Amino acid sequence: MAELLEIDIATGAQTEFVDITDKVKLSARQLEVKSGLLIIYCPHTTGAVTINEGADPAVKRDIIAVMNQIVPWHFDYRHLEGNSPAHVKASLMGESVQVIVEDDRLMLGTWQKIFFCEFDGPRKRRVWVKAIRS
Amino acid sequence: MAELLEIDIATGAQTEFVDITDKVKLSARQLEVKSGLLIIYCPHTTGAVTINEGADPAVKRDIIAVMNQIVPWHFDYRHLEGNSPAHVKASLMGESVQVIVEDDRLMLGTWQKIFFCEFDGPRKRRVWVKAIRS
Amino acid sequence: MAELLEIDIATGAQTEFVDITDKVKLSARQLEVKSGLLIIYCPHTTGAVTINEGADPAVKRDIIAVMNQIVPWHFDYRHLEGNSPAHVKASLMGESVQVIVEDDRLMLGTWQKIFFCEFDGPRKRRVWVKAIRS
Repeated sequence: MAELLEIDIATGAQTEFVDITDKVKLSARQLEVKSGLLIIYCPHTTGAVTINEGADPAVKRDIIAVMNQIVPWHFDYRHLEGNSPAHVKASLMGESVQVIVEDDRLMLGTWQKIFFCEFDGPRKRRVWVKAIRS
Repeated sequence: MAELLEIDIATGAQTEFVDITDKVKLSARQLEVKSGLLIIYCPHTTGAVTINEGADPAVKRDIIAVMNQIVPWHFDYRHLEGNSPAHVKASLMGESVQVIVEDDRLMLGTWQKIFFCEFDGPRKRRVWVKAIRS
Repeated sequence: MAELLEIDIATGAQTEFVDITDKVKLSARQLEVKSGLLIIYCPHTTGAVTINEGADPAVKRDIIAVMNQIVPWHFDYRHLEGNSPAHVKASLMGESVQVIVEDDRLMLGTWQKIFFCEFDGPRKRRVWVKAIRS
């Protein structure tokens, strides 16, 4: 039985939140987790994963807008690749989330969706989905 | 043996950190986890969970004060419900924490307490506590 | 078989990110995790753990510089120990990370390293490493 799957994501903008909830749910079915945890892990250092409201796309837009205000584009950065703001945002958002699985069902709140956070795109990205059964 | 419990929380202010450590410890006993992990998960998108100092209530007051300064109340928000700051704070704090259990004991640091973070209250809230045994 | 190990860290500055990746890898071998999760947990309330780029030391320098700009040193703080900025940063970064283990190998992205984040040093610190096998 597989324990680990990969989800491929093609981001289309410099900064973008991509709803990956349906892909994670598909992974949960493929991993055949009845009860336990799913870990959704981003192996990139200029991307992240977060859970927030998915019904109104204005919510992710507002989160991105505030992140862009909090973390300055122009600053005394030393990292020469020019993507330091993306690294800061990645650590602030976090590289992984965990979702409870119970009775074969991903336990998300009513309004919760899982987002891949692109902070240095557009790029080809991936997240890993790991099953822990309980 | 139960794997998942729910903790009910009634918040009393717009922004508030509620110490839920004792309730989580009670859940750990009810879940009979000897060794493993407890996942404390917030299913709301304008609330969060964090771990920080609980001895001096000024610490949570100071964290809230800085969060309110970092995330502007007035901004070019598009989400029409008017609670975008709460959504931003939820993603910055994170929707879940994990605590190690060893020898029937929740492994918290000396000063650590587990807080439910209310960013759009007062409301009736809940968090889920999931046991992973090792 | 051990389930939990402790890593000792001596920080050398007020604010500093210490790369603990090699120590975590050694713990993974000692814990003999073939497949599962490693939880890296900081029991301190003025420290944290994060995962970010480790190849160029300018990245951690830039993250620290922005954190110091976001969280003011001088503010209407009430906590009398004078380290409220460290408490805020600890909650923003998060007190733990989880890393997937597969085929005896820690699944980190190409550029990812695990950092202990000191926000109120220099001090003697420790993190706990817990194994969840799958």
